[in-house]
Amino acid sequence: MNYTALMTKACQTMKGSEIGELLAVTRSEGFISLAAGVPAKEVYPVEKIAMAAKKLLEKRGREVLQYGDPLGDYALREQITAQILPSYGITVMPEQIQLTAGSMQGLDLCARLFLAEGDIALVESPTFIDAMNTLGFTGARVEGIPCDAEGMALEPLRARLDEGQVKIIYVIPDYQNPTGRCWSQARRRAFMQLVQQYEVIVLEDNPYGEIVYDGVPQTALKHYDTKGQVIFLGSFSKTFSPGLRIGWLAADKRLIEALNMVKERSDIHSSIPDQALVATFMEEYSYRDHVTAMSNLYKNRLNTLVTALQTALPEFTFQVPQGGFFLWVRLPQGVDCMAFFEAALAKKVAVVPGQAFFPAKDNTAYIRLNFTGIDEMQLQEAVQRMAQAYHALKANI
Amino acid sequence: MNYTALMTKACQTMKGSEIGELLAVTRSEGFISLAAGVPAKEVYPVEKIAMAAKKLLEKRGREVLQYGDPLGDYALREQITAQILPSYGITVMPEQIQLTAGSMQGLDLCARLFLAEGDIALVESPTFIDAMNTLGFTGARVEGIPCDAEGMALEPLRARLDEGQVKIIYVIPDYQNPTGRCWSQARRRAFMQLVQQYEVIVLEDNPYGEIVYDGVPQTALKHYDTKGQVIFLGSFSKTFSPGLRIGWLAADKRLIEALNMVKERSDIHSSIPDQALVATFMEEYSYRDHVTAMSNLYKNRLNTLVTALQTALPEFTFQVPQGGFFLWVRLPQGVDCMAFFEAALAKKVAVVPGQAFFPAKDNTAYIRLNFTGIDEMQLQEAVQRMAQAYHALKANI
Repeated sequence: MNYTALMTKACQTMKGSEIGELLAVTRSEGFISLAAGVPAKEVYPVEKIAMAAKKLLEKRGREVLQYGDPLGDYALREQITAQILPSYGITVMPEQIQLTAGSMQGLDLCARLFLAEGDIALVESPTFIDAMNTLGFTGARVEGIPCDAEGMALEPLRARLDEGQVKIIYVIPDYQNPTGRCWSQARRRAFMQLVQQYEVIVLEDNPYGEIVYDGVPQTALKHYDTKGQVIFLGSFSKTFSPGLRIGWLAADKRLIEALNMVKERSDIHSSIPDQALVATFMEEYSYRDHVTAMSNLYKNRLNTLVTALQTALPEFTFQVPQGGFFLWVRLPQGVDCMAFFEAALAKKVAVVPGQAFFPAKDNTAYIRLNFTGIDEMQLQEAVQRMAQAYHALKANI
Repeated sequence: MNYTALMTKACQTMKGSEIGELLAVTRSEGFISLAAGVPAKEVYPVEKIAMAAKKLLEKRGREVLQYGDPLGDYALREQITAQILPSYGITVMPEQIQLTAGSMQGLDLCARLFLAEGDIALVESPTFIDAMNTLGFTGARVEGIPCDAEGMALEPLRARLDEGQVKIIYVIPDYQNPTGRCWSQARRRAFMQLVQQYEVIVLEDNPYGEIVYDGVPQTALKHYDTKGQVIFLGSFSKTFSPGLRIGWLAADKRLIEALNMVKERSDIHSSIPDQALVATFMEEYSYRDHVTAMSNLYKNRLNTLVTALQTALPEFTFQVPQGGFFLWVRLPQGVDCMAFFEAALAKKVAVVPGQAFFPAKDNTAYIRLNFTGIDEMQLQEAVQRMAQAYHALKANI
């Protein structure tokens, strides 16, 4: 069988996740990986989850094991509207929530609803690699819009919107992947004032917004949305467990109805027991305390990484993020991210070369470092290895 | 916002699930529904699942809550290859299994990999409504091939394959939805001999194959597959729990790699804790005993429904299925399935009018009855109401 000949055009050229391939290489003995974007597994509240599972199965076992509501477990949708969305300034009803298999599926549902060949999806440049893959998988073209310290740059955005064909603008305003950037409130308001003038959908992806090191959660773009053009994508993958794959969409009721029809064609609904498990956890224990403890651990790890880099690699520059999972590091002049990536691999430390995050792949000056998934000793050791890699590389330039 | 104008062509015309809409109507007080295709919630092994969950979280809690293998939990893939697939005559390695969110997602992944506008997907006429929706959502055209008592009719199939453009043939050889038909082994062999002559993918969907009332599980099409053209779709939705949404694909390794890339763009992976929970259940308890107990309950319900129909509605005719979830009933000459459906609703009993299962919507002679989801007393009461509906209808013809 020539399988490739039978595949769609988009599938004939698709490639595996670049980060996924990196991870495979670095899973071998002795590697330290700052490449993945994973939570610390030591903070998963395993005992409380076990108690919640027992309680859930006793109270609602036969109900949750049966086919359920296509929008997802109502109890969890209630908890999201009550405990999570208000901190972003978002007020919606549980009926405006579609639970999804991680926020990645939320993105995929939106992409399938709006995008086809000939359409344009705009993204921040740089942005989350997997989001570009999912948006582009529809046949749409993904184009980057430059950003500054406050968020997406509005003049290039306006110019591109005026050119036409743009269906979707995909942004991560809170502690972005890969840059860690948090949009200013002024830019959020100005962005919304601009996009309101166009018939375009804004996908506001916010997996990191609750992981805050300095301050409180930010008021979302969705808060400023007067015409129902923002679809807010949330997730429990960073705050609770990525293995469970629980995310959600919050949007205008008419959009939820359409997205639910796409969901029905994708997988009918997502795991009701998992959703109800998180709802039970949120009813029985303090979700806020759990997220705060997690954030405190990550803040210490970030501080350790920052101090180690400032000491061992003062030529590397960065803004310290106020939340999220990533440190976006600018390499010294003349050092290419792919070259540094390979030098680091030779010293058994994995980072993500920044090039992959730029839609045009035209910037080789950055690397992305994750600091949440590994402990402080390992972070310090990783920086030592990076310094060795850098000096070995410099000797060869 | 004019949302519809922003949607893709396929989404502008999509409709909600017809069965889903039926279910909404019949959820009110006093209704008996034979419309859904749901397991009996009283046979979910809730206590054993609670024990398995406790054990799993103790042994593998932090591992399963973290991001996992994109193919899904290895332990469950092992259990599927060891305990389930051999009964169908299928021998594959765990590496040839992709776990999915129900077999519906397996179907969606295959549709996205192979189908685009201009392509043709062939299905049995009649067939599972949601499968047609998912296949057609790609822009491909879904065409029905007639069937006889032994399975898909091979002469019309050959003629259609010779016309060209066919990428996929989607079939449910074991206790089909909606007909309950089980293909003969002779037809399976002849079908595979025919399709081997074409570059076409066969999707063998088998959610009901283990629910057997007479005999043993059937040797699958996949068993006769010499060139790697069959993708086998399995599911725990009928045998264990539909709420958990666990299905799988078994296929050639190259196809699994491609399907995994589509899965990555859809939702990264499915719930690892759920998959590992089923694996733990299968390690700790007898899965076979569980399925046998379930099948015995359903067999009694089927017998009750058959006897009640033969007594109260001898004009209604059917073949008694040897497995699965459905009785496919031919209405008396001159009785239209939509008219009977509405007459039944007036008597507070829900059935599915058969027309919706025919790709061309050109046959109004059948209704589909589910007998697994409700108890024997309710089944008898449902038949009484159907008899009242029929007599009321006949009085008006």
